[in-house]
Amino acid sequence: MRWEPCWLPETDIPESLHTPLDTAAWELEQAGLTVTIKLDQELGNDAYEITEGKGETQIRGGSTGVLYGAYGLLACRRLGLSIPKGVQTPAFALRMLNHWDNMDGTVERGYAGDSLFFEKGGFRNDFSRLRWYARLLASVGINVICLNNVNVHAPAQALTDMRFLPDVAQLSALFAPFGIRLMLAVDFAMPMQAGLPTADPLDERVRTWWNERVSLIYRFVPSLCGFLVKADSENRPGPYAYGRDHAQGANLLARALQPHGGVLVWRCFVYNCKQDWRDHTTDRPMAAYQNYAAMDGEFEDNVILQIKHGPFDFQVREPLSPLLLAMPHTRKAMELQLTQEYTGQQIDLYAMQGMWNELFADLPSGRVTAIAAVANTGCDENWTGHPLAQLNLFAYGITAWQPGLPFEQVTRCWARLTYSLTGESLETLVNLLVHSRETYERYTATLGLCWMVNPGYHYGPNPMGYEYSPWGTYHRADRNAVGVDRTASGTGYLLQYPLRWQERYRNPETCPERLLLFFHRLPYHWRMKDGRTLLQRIYDDAYAGAAETVIMRNQLRTLKNALPQATYRIAAERLERQVGNAREWRDVLCDFFHRLSGVEDEKARL
Amino acid sequence: MRWEPCWLPETDIPESLHTPLDTAAWELEQAGLTVTIKLDQELGNDAYEITEGKGETQIRGGSTGVLYGAYGLLACRRLGLSIPKGVQTPAFALRMLNHWDNMDGTVERGYAGDSLFFEKGGFRNDFSRLRWYARLLASVGINVICLNNVNVHAPAQALTDMRFLPDVAQLSALFAPFGIRLMLAVDFAMPMQAGLPTADPLDERVRTWWNERVSLIYRFVPSLCGFLVKADSENRPGPYAYGRDHAQGANLLARALQPHGGVLVWRCFVYNCKQDWRDHTTDRPMAAYQNYAAMDGEFEDNVILQIKHGPFDFQVREPLSPLLLAMPHTRKAMELQLTQEYTGQQIDLYAMQGMWNELFADLPSGRVTAIAAVANTGCDENWTGHPLAQLNLFAYGITAWQPGLPFEQVTRCWARLTYSLTGESLETLVNLLVHSRETYERYTATLGLCWMVNPGYHYGPNPMGYEYSPWGTYHRADRNAVGVDRTASGTGYLLQYPLRWQERYRNPETCPERLLLFFHRLPYHWRMKDGRTLLQRIYDDAYAGAAETVIMRNQLRTLKNALPQATYRIAAERLERQVGNAREWRDVLCDFFHRLSGVEDEKARL
Repeated sequence: MRWEPCWLPETDIPESLHTPLDTAAWELEQAGLTVTIKLDQELGNDAYEITEGKGETQIRGGSTGVLYGAYGLLACRRLGLSIPKGVQTPAFALRMLNHWDNMDGTVERGYAGDSLFFEKGGFRNDFSRLRWYARLLASVGINVICLNNVNVHAPAQALTDMRFLPDVAQLSALFAPFGIRLMLAVDFAMPMQAGLPTADPLDERVRTWWNERVSLIYRFVPSLCGFLVKADSENRPGPYAYGRDHAQGANLLARALQPHGGVLVWRCFVYNCKQDWRDHTTDRPMAAYQNYAAMDGEFEDNVILQIKHGPFDFQVREPLSPLLLAMPHTRKAMELQLTQEYTGQQIDLYAMQGMWNELFADLPSGRVTAIAAVANTGCDENWTGHPLAQLNLFAYGITAWQPGLPFEQVTRCWARLTYSLTGESLETLVNLLVHSRETYERYTATLGLCWMVNPGYHYGPNPMGYEYSPWGTYHRADRNAVGVDRTASGTGYLLQYPLRWQERYRNPETCPERLLLFFHRLPYHWRMKDGRTLLQRIYDDAYAGAAETVIMRNQLRTLKNALPQATYRIAAERLERQVGNAREWRDVLCDFFHRLSGVEDEKARL
Repeated sequence: MRWEPCWLPETDIPESLHTPLDTAAWELEQAGLTVTIKLDQELGNDAYEITEGKGETQIRGGSTGVLYGAYGLLACRRLGLSIPKGVQTPAFALRMLNHWDNMDGTVERGYAGDSLFFEKGGFRNDFSRLRWYARLLASVGINVICLNNVNVHAPAQALTDMRFLPDVAQLSALFAPFGIRLMLAVDFAMPMQAGLPTADPLDERVRTWWNERVSLIYRFVPSLCGFLVKADSENRPGPYAYGRDHAQGANLLARALQPHGGVLVWRCFVYNCKQDWRDHTTDRPMAAYQNYAAMDGEFEDNVILQIKHGPFDFQVREPLSPLLLAMPHTRKAMELQLTQEYTGQQIDLYAMQGMWNELFADLPSGRVTAIAAVANTGCDENWTGHPLAQLNLFAYGITAWQPGLPFEQVTRCWARLTYSLTGESLETLVNLLVHSRETYERYTATLGLCWMVNPGYHYGPNPMGYEYSPWGTYHRADRNAVGVDRTASGTGYLLQYPLRWQERYRNPETCPERLLLFFHRLPYHWRMKDGRTLLQRIYDDAYAGAAETVIMRNQLRTLKNALPQATYRIAAERLERQVGNAREWRDVLCDFFHRLSGVEDEKARL
């Protein structure tokens, strides 16, 4: 069986591989390359250097670095690129993938089939496929995966006890030869589920319980990377229930993990999900900073705060989260979302690396020390539902190793590696992907207008869908204006940023237009820089985005013979649905703003 | 076990009752009354006469009439009313209750617990409770119940074959002593599920299949009343798939039923549920008339067209369906909905008889020959979820026997029979119930504005929820105006009515205000008869309705000791939720129309 599309040679992966060094040697042998591999732990675990001379190629690297060196060499050979000079070191030591997999086999916000790990309340144990998956992830440098959903649904609590630890250990051994360590999402209230009367982080019994539990886990899985926790968030339990703060909560678990070298990844996705929509002063984007910024320095060294890239929740366009710019004395991870919850659900094309490059261009280096992404993979034969969505997984691995590489270049590499495209076909596919985000943004969320999706489901237009909900997600559109004033004269969200950022966003005349309605409330007749009104821009973008999907469809058709048959068939079928989705977005948004404003489209398209 | 609230003496019902005459004798004996019962089939099945004289009371009646006579006498005795003079005959020979029960035990749009009949794909067979249920229905004169959902989900198709026919027969025997006959909802495509290549009503094989199937059914259940069919409606199969009309479809089944004396009840709820919201010419309320009116006279004599009372779908306020005024040569049933799908879901109080009285006041007599209602009952101990919702079941039975009795009088009878209330408590409860519909209408759907509910779920406000949906349910509110022009200058819906009706509704100056926005599209500044603007009226009604729920809560509190404890507790808890629901409706609707219109509330409450 072949899982499309993967650029590595299609061969069964032997069970005899035990270390990344074994795997490196096997991969090079499969490819018919004669390479000397030298372990050099002084470079650090992940780093490597490839040297060529006198007809001999050598890879020198740390324990996993040798494997990354092998994949790097294979990619260069296949692409005909010259070998990178000098020691290659990843920007982030932890390059994490968070699976939102439930043990019943479903995947929360998953659009690529069932869970790769679980089914029917236990492990799926399709080891052959999992070895392919490990190899796929290792080939792009991912080195940590969290197996289970951050919303820990029963029986996933038992991943940390005798019931499932043997299975976790087995998976850990399976992923080890690919340099990948496991992480488990745990439930803060687990001590109570185990019979304690409290989960209070300052209670001695709770501390003892976690210490013992962690010791048990590490007896089975000595290489476990650590825990991932969603606490006091969207109805999950957490330290607030005991009047404790999140440093106290996180440190409890961190201290239990310390003796074993484990890390505690603590998600900062904490906000009031029962907001009264009548309340105009509470502003959800302010929540993460309000909850955490003042606690800088209070967390144990092995705590990593995992912060979503934007202050809301993986919307199409958000500014960088101000919390990522704060807390200099705290380890922080940036969280991205590969699964396309709000970005087309692997039906609509949405290539993400352009967004990530913008984020990293905004983020001074050294502010985050780790990176995480919610996985977009599942049991679908092509791993990601939409075959072209695998680019996002690939580009995430590349970005986690070295942020900011040109989007187009990475996309081109992926298209060549995966489909061996050349010439016009290659340019067509790259062009289709590189512009896909702008197109999606135009028809769904221009100017930073977000949350106009169908509530709950998050696909398709519903401009009033979140206006009277408790989730803190409002655009407050009325007959005159739209958007939320988040400057000092409004909710004050902007004041959470350093001064330079405040200056960039505070004046609607100079604020980047792509975030205009994120930061400002403006009348429909507001003049954009090119002289059009704000309203006309909304109309125009909706029409332009929808028209672009038709062009995309036509472009894709030219690739019918260049792409593998199944890839083309699935991509074409989805792009057809995207054309319909874009038309619906266009017409609903234009109708909605036309009803409100009463102003006709200058081009008389309504 | 006692199922609250029921006015009949709490005694186990013996299995030895076989006929309504047996039951009549047993009921009278239970009540300690000495009565001579005389069967007199010449009166007709259901009619009865009670006479008193020389210390002797006599009930003379048809085979079921004797039982209705007994219940009538018991009620009069309990209420201290004088015996009605002369022969009592029901207005409708078929007084039907449609259960929307699925065989997995759920009830579509049910708000009173699980199905009384089914669980886990089979029959629940709680015979003791079902006998109580039969008695409850008989006591208000209901004589036909359809057991299963008109949306026939597997395995309910097997209700008509060997798998479940013995169970149906058993239930039929259980209901017989209470004068209640069963009906089954069938799926038009059943011949195909049974292996035929078609369900075309003109195909000989299909005809033969139905004839044989019906013969089989009647061998098991000779007293079956007939079939209920939802065809070509909301994605159900039907004759349109074969290019046949609904007369051809209905007559197929009717002819199969004729030899056995069965009737075929054919629902006229046919409309385009995939409408493009952009299409302003298609108008869903026109659908039933368009689909059926021209077929008058084409249906077999044992076909009854079951027509919803309004042209939409059980909204809070709709005009009488024009189809009920048409088709003089066709038997028609009016369909009501006791289960409160759009009317508060048995959380909010909503007593319905006032609405039915308006409908019957509008309907010239003789236009409908049968009556049906979707049941509001289930396994909850009080039968109807909200204990006070049982009034709707009671009032339906009364209305089915004699439409148009004063709402307040019927409500008073029910409150006295059920709770033995007197004096101020009685007046308080009657007042609470009699005005509950107006209150609900004020905060959810004033002036005939419907469909502002949460899509799918149908509870709670969502003013734009159905505006971009395919269900044909639009109010088209924009910054200037709201409503749909359904007059000759608009969609033309009004032209489906007789002239006198057209005159009543066509001029917005004289159209009854409660239906103003059902028939007309009007600007917010439109002057109502009392001088207020349309918009101010919407604001005022929302506030008045919400304020009334607070008064209702206070009124109910005065009944704490007058009502049974469980009744009070459940009613009070629900009324608390109603207060919250009404506040949410008020604020969402006012905010919505304020955003659109930009016009402030004159009373500055927003």
